[in-house]
Amino acid sequence: MPLLRVASFTISLDGFGAGPNQSLETPLGEGAESLHEWFIPTRTFQRMLFGRDEGTLGIDNEFAEDGFQNLGAWILGRNIFGPVRGPWPDGEWKGWWGPNPPYHVPVFVLTHHKREPLEMEGGTTFHFVTGGIHEALERARAAAGNADIRVGGGVDTIRQYLKERLIDRMHIAISRAMLGSGEHLFGGINLLELGYERTRFVPAETAVHMVIEKKAA
Amino acid sequence: MPLLRVASFTISLDGFGAGPNQSLETPLGEGAESLHEWFIPTRTFQRMLFGRDEGTLGIDNEFAEDGFQNLGAWILGRNIFGPVRGPWPDGEWKGWWGPNPPYHVPVFVLTHHKREPLEMEGGTTFHFVTGGIHEALERARAAAGNADIRVGGGVDTIRQYLKERLIDRMHIAISRAMLGSGEHLFGGINLLELGYERTRFVPAETAVHMVIEKKAA
Repeated sequence: MPLLRVASFTISLDGFGAGPNQSLETPLGEGAESLHEWFIPTRTFQRMLFGRDEGTLGIDNEFAEDGFQNLGAWILGRNIFGPVRGPWPDGEWKGWWGPNPPYHVPVFVLTHHKREPLEMEGGTTFHFVTGGIHEALERARAAAGNADIRVGGGVDTIRQYLKERLIDRMHIAISRAMLGSGEHLFGGINLLELGYERTRFVPAETAVHMVIEKKAA
Repeated sequence: MPLLRVASFTISLDGFGAGPNQSLETPLGEGAESLHEWFIPTRTFQRMLFGRDEGTLGIDNEFAEDGFQNLGAWILGRNIFGPVRGPWPDGEWKGWWGPNPPYHVPVFVLTHHKREPLEMEGGTTFHFVTGGIHEALERARAAAGNADIRVGGGVDTIRQYLKERLIDRMHIAISRAMLGSGEHLFGGINLLELGYERTRFVPAETAVHMVIEKKAA
């Protein structure tokens, strides 16, 4: 059974998954770049973004790499796709990632506003889903076949899927960054009551990795 | 200048400093014993509770030990002192720790209800403070002289001191325990805005240790 997964999603030591005041200059919110200091040096990230075989190969890279294994589709909240709010003024905004985004599979973007699918280079097509998280998941499952689906964020999107017990496995990194405010990933969510358990806890130098899984019903 | 410190205070991976449903049987709330799996095996704890020179000497113990250095007084919330709520029915409850509590200095217990000081063996005297956190701090400073004061918890007491920027340094351990609910340590508190910074981040096997300090004004 393919999984609905969260991977390499990083929160600050005070529990925030994105910084305040998101903008074009600070897509993850103020201060949030420091969240990813465990991720950026990894070979997985270096290869993905710069196409070069450099970067670290330790535990951080293992987690980063695992996040890309066996993926058949992604689901993203609209704010992860871009800074545009409200109705799409035109088709100009095509994501943060340039002509060849690092997905290479269908990506389902949650939005309240209709937009035609956007086919990019390298196998990525952005589909804009206006029917909510269940519709997005259904379409992603159809697209992914036997492969997993990764929820790429943001916090609100993950929380929506989590509250409905739809996420099967999450790799969350707690970074050493302090954000002070922003969107809290677990606030008001009772993971135990939802039937999740922490199955791994792997400290690294600039973050601690944990895996949280849904227990069999 | 003596410091107002928090030390060895442990939160769950989902951010809770105490479990739900605190009671006589579960003084830290349900499931919270698992918070302290980093602390219990340390020599510091083994020596303190059982008087024996056993236990681990690694990074966990370094942090545990440091928490007891140069202390001249403690401040505790009432729920840390015991499960009694409302007016003190009598003088029977004398804390969780038996006749010789592990403090050995004056301990100021925050409560809304008057009670005479309680002198225990080994140098610990419990003083019951009804005037709030500032009065407790003032009296603790007078008692501690040039030594530090440690805020022993619980979550609510730490949050009260934190919001007033009165805490100088905190060692917080994020454990691998998941609690699901309970009292959230940092929820709604903006550490950055209050002028704190994270100065250490030290991963260990079952917890990650971090030190958060108030920046010089």
